[in-house]
Amino acid sequence: MEASLSEEESLEAGRMKASESENIEIGVEKLQVKIKRVRVLQLLCSVSVLVVANAALSGSMEAPEWQRTLRDELVQLGKEAQELTGSFCPRIENPSALEFLRDFVLPNRPCIITGAMEEWPARRQWSNEYLTGRLGEKKVSVNVTPDGRGDAIVDDKFFVLPEERLMTFAQFLAELYREGNDDVLYLSHQNDNLRSQIGEALLNDVPPSIPFVDDALGHGPDAVNLWMGDSRSVTTLHKDHYENLYAVIRGEKIFTLYPPTSLPFLYPHPYGIRRYRKEGGAWRICELGEQEGEEVKSWISVNPNAPDYDRHPLFEFASKTQVRVRPGEMLYLPSMWFHQVEQSDDTVAVNYWYDMVYGDRYAYHKFIESMVRQAHIK
Amino acid sequence: MEASLSEEESLEAGRMKASESENIEIGVEKLQVKIKRVRVLQLLCSVSVLVVANAALSGSMEAPEWQRTLRDELVQLGKEAQELTGSFCPRIENPSALEFLRDFVLPNRPCIITGAMEEWPARRQWSNEYLTGRLGEKKVSVNVTPDGRGDAIVDDKFFVLPEERLMTFAQFLAELYREGNDDVLYLSHQNDNLRSQIGEALLNDVPPSIPFVDDALGHGPDAVNLWMGDSRSVTTLHKDHYENLYAVIRGEKIFTLYPPTSLPFLYPHPYGIRRYRKEGGAWRICELGEQEGEEVKSWISVNPNAPDYDRHPLFEFASKTQVRVRPGEMLYLPSMWFHQVEQSDDTVAVNYWYDMVYGDRYAYHKFIESMVRQAHIK
Repeated sequence: MEASLSEEESLEAGRMKASESENIEIGVEKLQVKIKRVRVLQLLCSVSVLVVANAALSGSMEAPEWQRTLRDELVQLGKEAQELTGSFCPRIENPSALEFLRDFVLPNRPCIITGAMEEWPARRQWSNEYLTGRLGEKKVSVNVTPDGRGDAIVDDKFFVLPEERLMTFAQFLAELYREGNDDVLYLSHQNDNLRSQIGEALLNDVPPSIPFVDDALGHGPDAVNLWMGDSRSVTTLHKDHYENLYAVIRGEKIFTLYPPTSLPFLYPHPYGIRRYRKEGGAWRICELGEQEGEEVKSWISVNPNAPDYDRHPLFEFASKTQVRVRPGEMLYLPSMWFHQVEQSDDTVAVNYWYDMVYGDRYAYHKFIESMVRQAHIK
Repeated sequence: MEASLSEEESLEAGRMKASESENIEIGVEKLQVKIKRVRVLQLLCSVSVLVVANAALSGSMEAPEWQRTLRDELVQLGKEAQELTGSFCPRIENPSALEFLRDFVLPNRPCIITGAMEEWPARRQWSNEYLTGRLGEKKVSVNVTPDGRGDAIVDDKFFVLPEERLMTFAQFLAELYREGNDDVLYLSHQNDNLRSQIGEALLNDVPPSIPFVDDALGHGPDAVNLWMGDSRSVTTLHKDHYENLYAVIRGEKIFTLYPPTSLPFLYPHPYGIRRYRKEGGAWRICELGEQEGEEVKSWISVNPNAPDYDRHPLFEFASKTQVRVRPGEMLYLPSMWFHQVEQSDDTVAVNYWYDMVYGDRYAYHKFIESMVRQAHIK
């Protein structure tokens, strides 16, 4: 297994601070040295089991002091996790199940896997003509918005779902490539569409699951989704409770990643849920129907491409990693990592969602989520 | 790989509450159902990325309210981690590296490994006569105390180290088995003694490392230690920054385990460090010499065998697992788990310390340690 990392990883999109670029460019060896240094320190402690306590603070703290203490500790947690795990994303060639599990799933670290899609017929065959020939009359769910931002915060006020249109694949392609179409179409409905809607028509072109991931995790994927869209479509910052293998067939995907410990710096906030609807040729933001379930959604309020540091001062502590995933490459996006996804025109991708382990890491994250919510950390 | 669990796991030592026994007796299938239930719930949420926020609390909280909030959240964290990870310790026969890594190291869960020591010559050969023949004149470091409790809290006041005596192995055995000897000797000096002090004399009898663990973790052990003592010796509750494989050759070891998320309920406290010394036939507790390093040690103040619930009311939330490890069995004691160790008379064991991964789980734990220290949670 080889790990390599090029400067190309450092995309210029968004505001990238010097420290972040350095982090992205840091070599694997350097990180290993860092980790080794920590380990040596730990070794010196031998059986010393708990960090020697600071002189205990005396007396009760005032509430504002409490907030400061919690904030400082959360900043420290974020820094420590970044130092230990690193905020970069190495390229790994065809790892074994054991290497993948040990070096990435166990420490909850992303990587780009190369050389694992060489045999996929999809890589040679998936032209628009071929896809239309195979799928032309299949019905697919398509997300449509006026600006490419479905599942996004609008006017700092609502969490707005995309309009969902059911159409044939041929209709979808015609609309996607129609010159001057102001509606932004994105085949991004994560309903296991490759298996549930598209079925056998494409399942000989991509594997039903990723063998080394099946072996590593001990089970197959819960969902396999086909994604297709252009550069106007953006998936805004969020996290999923899945181990995600995201395979790019055509075009490029640009992922902006933040680890779970960056949660307090991303300002999750509860928003009322609305949905885009196009009625009489005009886009409207509508209330949900009674059958559409929950009415409030917690979503990240920071826009990492244009952060407002006055409103979100702690965002400077968020540990950003940005990666460009090219055709034939597969991103391992670890469970609970926050991600924003952008893409080039003419991008086709398939992702595999594997169930994550719900254990202490999940419980820690929920604990911090709850503390942040109650503390109004600013 | 098979997992089994018998009622024998439920030892009567210490105060064991009904809920704890149930937890120990819970079957693997039942836990899997539990986990599955959580997963199904998560699946239903689909891309819903953050728990829907509770109605945000308004206004600042008073300091005591803050302490209560933190305490309640820590209790919730402990419960959630216990529900997800389970507080039991299955017996697993000869797991593969992948199974061991996936099912135990990744979720940071203990297990007892059976069938992995069948070929160890030590299991047939390590009588006292044989050991004396091989090691008689070797110098070994022995921990000596008046009561079997080295590295323990004495009079609720000091953390007291054992007296360290360097003697030949033959002298150690003679003293250990001498009728009426009030000094309690314990060959338990974790200085990699099997390799550094005993060396090749025994290293043909036990393997230099555990192959499936080497493969799982990607490296060999940092230390291999020989342990030998009688039922008076107790290792008090603490944690180590190692993945620990603890192989019992003769006798039985009884481990009382608490997961890292139980930290807030175990009341770590800073103690001045002292050392036992026997001078003129009488035991004294002495200050450390100037060369002996740190003067304060954070140690667990709860005694799990006789908890004082008035002083330590949150101890009721600690998630206890108790296991008896028999000859030919090996405990996987995950890194950062708190453990107290008792044993039968005439116990001989070897443990392998493997470096742990320092990542987000370690950072989360340190965060909680620091919050608990500053909050004076009671």
